[in-house]
Amino acid sequence: MKALVYKAVGEVKLEERPKPKITHPGDAIVKLTKSTICGTDLHITQGDVATCTPGRILGHEGVGIVEETGVSVSGFKKGERVLISCICSCATCEYCRRGMYSHCTTGGWILGNTIDGTQAEYVRIPHADSSLYPIPPGADEAALVMLSDIFPTGLECGVINSKIQPGSTVVVIGTGPVGLASIITAQLYSPSLIIAIDTDPNRLTVAKQMGAHHAINSASEKNVEEVVKKLTDGKGCDAVIEAVGIPATFELCQALVAPGGVIANVGVHGGKVDLHLENLWDKNIAITTRLVDAVTTPMLLRLAVSGKLDPSKLITHKFPFSDMEKAYGTFRAAAKHQALKVLIEFDK
Amino acid sequence: MKALVYKAVGEVKLEERPKPKITHPGDAIVKLTKSTICGTDLHITQGDVATCTPGRILGHEGVGIVEETGVSVSGFKKGERVLISCICSCATCEYCRRGMYSHCTTGGWILGNTIDGTQAEYVRIPHADSSLYPIPPGADEAALVMLSDIFPTGLECGVINSKIQPGSTVVVIGTGPVGLASIITAQLYSPSLIIAIDTDPNRLTVAKQMGAHHAINSASEKNVEEVVKKLTDGKGCDAVIEAVGIPATFELCQALVAPGGVIANVGVHGGKVDLHLENLWDKNIAITTRLVDAVTTPMLLRLAVSGKLDPSKLITHKFPFSDMEKAYGTFRAAAKHQALKVLIEFDK
Amino acid sequence: MKALVYKAVGEVKLEERPKPKITHPGDAIVKLTKSTICGTDLHITQGDVATCTPGRILGHEGVGIVEETGVSVSGFKKGERVLISCICSCATCEYCRRGMYSHCTTGGWILGNTIDGTQAEYVRIPHADSSLYPIPPGADEAALVMLSDIFPTGLECGVINSKIQPGSTVVVIGTGPVGLASIITAQLYSPSLIIAIDTDPNRLTVAKQMGAHHAINSASEKNVEEVVKKLTDGKGCDAVIEAVGIPATFELCQALVAPGGVIANVGVHGGKVDLHLENLWDKNIAITTRLVDAVTTPMLLRLAVSGKLDPSKLITHKFPFSDMEKAYGTFRAAAKHQALKVLIEFDK
Amino acid sequence: MKALVYKAVGEVKLEERPKPKITHPGDAIVKLTKSTICGTDLHITQGDVATCTPGRILGHEGVGIVEETGVSVSGFKKGERVLISCICSCATCEYCRRGMYSHCTTGGWILGNTIDGTQAEYVRIPHADSSLYPIPPGADEAALVMLSDIFPTGLECGVINSKIQPGSTVVVIGTGPVGLASIITAQLYSPSLIIAIDTDPNRLTVAKQMGAHHAINSASEKNVEEVVKKLTDGKGCDAVIEAVGIPATFELCQALVAPGGVIANVGVHGGKVDLHLENLWDKNIAITTRLVDAVTTPMLLRLAVSGKLDPSKLITHKFPFSDMEKAYGTFRAAAKHQALKVLIEFDK
Repeated sequence: MKALVYKAVGEVKLEERPKPKITHPGDAIVKLTKSTICGTDLHITQGDVATCTPGRILGHEGVGIVEETGVSVSGFKKGERVLISCICSCATCEYCRRGMYSHCTTGGWILGNTIDGTQAEYVRIPHADSSLYPIPPGADEAALVMLSDIFPTGLECGVINSKIQPGSTVVVIGTGPVGLASIITAQLYSPSLIIAIDTDPNRLTVAKQMGAHHAINSASEKNVEEVVKKLTDGKGCDAVIEAVGIPATFELCQALVAPGGVIANVGVHGGKVDLHLENLWDKNIAITTRLVDAVTTPMLLRLAVSGKLDPSKLITHKFPFSDMEKAYGTFRAAAKHQALKVLIEFDK
Repeated sequence: MKALVYKAVGEVKLEERPKPKITHPGDAIVKLTKSTICGTDLHITQGDVATCTPGRILGHEGVGIVEETGVSVSGFKKGERVLISCICSCATCEYCRRGMYSHCTTGGWILGNTIDGTQAEYVRIPHADSSLYPIPPGADEAALVMLSDIFPTGLECGVINSKIQPGSTVVVIGTGPVGLASIITAQLYSPSLIIAIDTDPNRLTVAKQMGAHHAINSASEKNVEEVVKKLTDGKGCDAVIEAVGIPATFELCQALVAPGGVIANVGVHGGKVDLHLENLWDKNIAITTRLVDAVTTPMLLRLAVSGKLDPSKLITHKFPFSDMEKAYGTFRAAAKHQALKVLIEFDK
Repeated sequence: MKALVYKAVGEVKLEERPKPKITHPGDAIVKLTKSTICGTDLHITQGDVATCTPGRILGHEGVGIVEETGVSVSGFKKGERVLISCICSCATCEYCRRGMYSHCTTGGWILGNTIDGTQAEYVRIPHADSSLYPIPPGADEAALVMLSDIFPTGLECGVINSKIQPGSTVVVIGTGPVGLASIITAQLYSPSLIIAIDTDPNRLTVAKQMGAHHAINSASEKNVEEVVKKLTDGKGCDAVIEAVGIPATFELCQALVAPGGVIANVGVHGGKVDLHLENLWDKNIAITTRLVDAVTTPMLLRLAVSGKLDPSKLITHKFPFSDMEKAYGTFRAAAKHQALKVLIEFDK
Repeated sequence: MKALVYKAVGEVKLEERPKPKITHPGDAIVKLTKSTICGTDLHITQGDVATCTPGRILGHEGVGIVEETGVSVSGFKKGERVLISCICSCATCEYCRRGMYSHCTTGGWILGNTIDGTQAEYVRIPHADSSLYPIPPGADEAALVMLSDIFPTGLECGVINSKIQPGSTVVVIGTGPVGLASIITAQLYSPSLIIAIDTDPNRLTVAKQMGAHHAINSASEKNVEEVVKKLTDGKGCDAVIEAVGIPATFELCQALVAPGGVIANVGVHGGKVDLHLENLWDKNIAITTRLVDAVTTPMLLRLAVSGKLDPSKLITHKFPFSDMEKAYGTFRAAAKHQALKVLIEFDK
């Protein structure tokens, strides 16, 4: 089969690989129909993810058709259309029972990381019964690819962790695909105010189209804190979502959080940051971290199918799988191409 | 009346002051019968608390007898015995309605800080109806002084914020009075393991008497993290309570927290700390801060009166109010005197 | 002043009464600008509410202008525009501290019940600081009258009690004003399905306009349970809201609740009902009851002012206060007049 | 092998049966070492449980040694000592993901009900990975038999559902084994008051030994409601646990619940009961039902192993498995024998 392989730092290549086989009774083999590229895939190709070494087939998002199932798989059969979760979950270990699928002792984020992933014609999915989801007939499969990772991440790490409730004030720092997914899913809880902050004018325009009430360009706005305070009666925001992952944005979060509020970290950080406990110790706030558990996938599927949520709004580009290397190029230069998510389509 | 006044950095003095008067309809004047000294009082006398300036009568803890009430006070009458909360709460502002009494727009921690406090024969209590609590007949008043601040702080900022549940694993870093109050109140939720960490052998001995299963002296133990991991199947603790307030202890917290756990900061920090988001971003943890709201005072009163809780266990020394300056000396040299809380008794 | 008085069973009359006076330091006198009539007012005039006796000025909803304040009122001044909550709350008693304002030991639902109410040119509001809310400049006062009772009731007793979450399935039995307020506020939490059940075709049409996905006329539909089960994969609904208050509708609730679901009772019941524990004991459900606490009023105000919620949608009729008796006539024959809420406007 | 079989209404018999075999890849065969008899087993033998028909091997509690595992079982190996949960859980269906293992679409309470159970030398356990729990070396196996059903039931259906918190007031109606398990596990949350109600003087004595502060014999006490109100400042109890299952006890619950409280139904009801919504509609209460999900088994295991909980306190009698019929006789005449739980021991 054809597969997109991480060859070396800075290099990915579409090459021929053997089709995967069932290795455990709970495995399923899925033939991909659609996939996408994640910011994390770019991090891998930059050599930033130590667990993922050259030779790996990348990708942890996608939809497809079940090709084969192990003897203990009871929920899926050959020919069924499925959504692949970016998180594999055994469902029975201590962490899975607590809803922390990301910390599953035999799963978690392994696809396209420690085992071969979904940017290939076929993929092996461990713990298939609890890592795949049936696609209802008539659903928009392109939209559902967005539910593999980006929407659960924005919802769980950003929106749910920051405890957004009706009437909350929300600020999202960073309006890449995950930040935008937070802005979209925040609206499931009816906040009265959503502020988007970024340095890219196009992304800020998109943020407003997706539901942000205010957009602040922190490259040009001298005093972001003052602007946010003015919009919130001087208090700051109840929910502060960090969707960038650098010290400067985490610093900004601390200036913007209201007493009693939450800073929900979504960004992947490569180093330590300053925490100003001298200001925050008596402010009754919380800071949360989370690797997406993808426990909200069933909820998101119901909302997408019922029309309450349109995840396809984040798709800006489409490529056939044969143009996968070009797709990486476009996604890597996202700002230039005004790219959010690129949809990868496989031949039937 | 006699009052203990913060004169200058390093100096407190018992001196004559005019008896306080009702200035708002919701005020009450309380004649003190018992009080105590808080670590925060020491911070003030060291010049560390900018809001409290020389000339202030110190103290935010105590029990006494209502002497006079403003016209709108409906819950208390002259002659009733009351517990004074360290937090004054109007009960009606936006923060009070959310249970954040510490952020009351016309209250919060003001006693012995921005208005005169309880280390005096009489004190004026604003918002008396929601800042005083009736003392049931027969209750041990000395024990109840511990409910003004130290027990709500240990319970709310430490135990409740860290979400201790039956079977949780808990580590408390710092076993001064607040850390010990956390150790005692943690047991209300039946954790399966409580570890105490400190550098003072006497306090660690006390911690074990108060219910800690293990005590680690971080002055002598080379690898605290390893010891804690051994006691917790390699995971770290579900609840990590920081009751010191310096960068080194906050650093240790980050090494000891289990995936899915909470670091509950109780310590008062004077500067920024390092937050290792490069390790924690995907660990599904929370860090919380809180100034005590004293919303649990009714619960603690019920537990103390029913015998489920004995707050008097923290009292190590007693002084008459006339020896107040000496009491400060003893409390300031707490380690030398093996002092936890000093009880101040007023003449009848 | 003019006031609408409950004279005898079946009789209300607009008559002259003395203007109310401040009787407690926390009171405010409010000059009404707008009010409305509640279904509960009709119950009173039918002799169904034992606590409310003839001679009482009715009404517990309205907006107005502060005319005078008691000495301890600190949050409001003469001339300020205010929303009157149907629930008076002292904010400091044990129940108020738990957010159960409806059970306030010196308040609760007293307006137009045990003390004179808002269907008068002036009304005395006890505990004014915590029972009135400032109206932001430019807000639609007619819409805000709906926040005195009907919207908090639909939201708290119906939506919040039934734990509606994104993706939930919801059925509302009874689409009078409170049921409709539940349908509208349920959408703050993004359920994937809302079913409305009633016997009045007009109200069902309105229910769909307000956001219900399906409307079932239980007068003509033989098998309501079957229809609901078909819409919910055979499971029933996660949230079942009872907004009628008779045995037959409560019986229906028990047939429609899904395993793990909640029956939230909103209806006022005059007698006992059958509870089929032989079917429900192992179904992991909850049944909740609640008198509105009006703790969500600040949230609802924020949502109304930000445009997220339009409470004026329930107003179908307007009357000047001088036509108050006629307004009662129209509201009493609500089905005939297709009346939901009638707005009462006072002379300026 | 030997097995205790439900032969006909009123008749159980120890007879020879074929040893069970693996039928699904996720099955395990467990050799029993200890078991017990549940009140539900008696209900079955009285013909009260329609799903369980004659010919069935009874029993859903026990500990044992893994004899054989299906190919997809990854958590257990032959020779390991295990606790058997009364609830089999696939861990992956919609209900299991929500923690409602009792409603597992391919599991739930099936042992000794719709498939053969644990009162036999060997038993087949479906979904072994998520329905068995490893027994730590050195644990008291007799005590752990109590964790198969009785302790999770008392804790989940009674204590957790009724939201007992530190300082709560609790009444438990019915002090059979499940009611006693509620009384014991309630103490994990430090209520300030536990009242036990029953008609059997011996069980009330035991209830007090297990931690109840007051015991009321409802056979002799004329006015139970008055006594409870006196003990609770006239309010009634925050948590009311119904552990009998007849209309009279459910009626009593409604008289004893405080405003804002919860009636947690644990009893198995054979018919409908009266629900006095005319009294309760405005009392802000909840009524909950639940079939045990056994989701707290890991917590209970940790507490038992750490010595926080001694489940063996409920064992009053021991029988070898060969005396199983006699054990049924004793348990059936529990009052006469002052029997709580009978321990069944198998030959090694």
